[in-house]
Amino acid sequence: MNKGILIVVSAPSGCGKGTILAEILKDEGYYYSVSATTRSPRPGEEDGVNYHFLKREQFEELIKNDGMLEYAEYCGNYYGTPKDKVFEKIEEGKNVILEIEVQGAMQIKKKCPQAVFIFIAPPSVGELRRRLLKRGTETEEVIEKRVSEATHEIGFAGEYDYIVVNGALEDAIEDFKTVIRAEKLKSANQKKLIDEVLENA
Amino acid sequence: MNKGILIVVSAPSGCGKGTILAEILKDEGYYYSVSATTRSPRPGEEDGVNYHFLKREQFEELIKNDGMLEYAEYCGNYYGTPKDKVFEKIEEGKNVILEIEVQGAMQIKKKCPQAVFIFIAPPSVGELRRRLLKRGTETEEVIEKRVSEATHEIGFAGEYDYIVVNGALEDAIEDFKTVIRAEKLKSANQKKLIDEVLENA
Repeated sequence: MNKGILIVVSAPSGCGKGTILAEILKDEGYYYSVSATTRSPRPGEEDGVNYHFLKREQFEELIKNDGMLEYAEYCGNYYGTPKDKVFEKIEEGKNVILEIEVQGAMQIKKKCPQAVFIFIAPPSVGELRRRLLKRGTETEEVIEKRVSEATHEIGFAGEYDYIVVNGALEDAIEDFKTVIRAEKLKSANQKKLIDEVLENA
Repeated sequence: MNKGILIVVSAPSGCGKGTILAEILKDEGYYYSVSATTRSPRPGEEDGVNYHFLKREQFEELIKNDGMLEYAEYCGNYYGTPKDKVFEKIEEGKNVILEIEVQGAMQIKKKCPQAVFIFIAPPSVGELRRRLLKRGTETEEVIEKRVSEATHEIGFAGEYDYIVVNGALEDAIEDFKTVIRAEKLKSANQKKLIDEVLENA
């Protein structure tokens, strides 16, 4: 069996990343990596589902033992990706999806250059603003802040291997699947195959 | 408009490369690069279709002026890929397909690392032998020579970006198309896109 691949996905908020990933994750060949945090669970949040909720000492122990693929401190709490589960699932042949913001993705790029980095972009910043306004859940001030963050994040898109534009959802899902299928065809991911081709002479 | 991409394809003889490429080339977005040679046309061969038939002086002039993407001398004749048409078509937005043997592909890899290298492999060397025997156009001795050449060539498959196994033809064609579609999604091929996303703010 071939190993799975590590897929790192970033997108500004409002780009439909959640919808795309929900569709991809219907396939059993994928595993969604749950982040760890030291912040307290909010009502309704489950340990191991929304986050792995860790004590500060546990998190710092993991950092010390190089057990984190990436991490950051934000508002006094740690957030990060524990390594063990990710690599265990890859060995099992699963494609592991890490949903992560730009800074974390750049950390992982240094540690795991063999991972596949996908940036999901809106068709335009103007369209992103329209979508956020239409959603109607935030004030205009908050929306402008999000648009400004999105603009900053899109500036990093060139650092990713692939850019998937979410104009029409179906196309974006198809593009995402195309990228993974092509990655599986990479010679680096098919080393066993060549041995097999040559063995059966 | 985005530029096209340069696709370098190699395969041992008998792997169905011709059938796969004929299917791909039905799409107008592709251009098949015709090689140049100094050997004489055989009956039925047309200049500009089977080969660009050049005089030895013309070919050597091209070599001198760095006008060849790759070339080799074989049985006293030159064979090679003239640069000009390839890059003209890429600028026009066409995906240019170069069908070429392993040594030529490795030359191009040094000069154009941005090209996409695809190796088409048989499901196994044993299956390749069965296909060649079934075709019944060659003696067993010639077939064994081809199988031995194929084994040598498959040893280079790991140098290519992608490996497409031609087990079932439909799947191989689909894999080939998947690779090209994914390449188009590479951030390096979408530099203009990001500018557009950010412009329409």
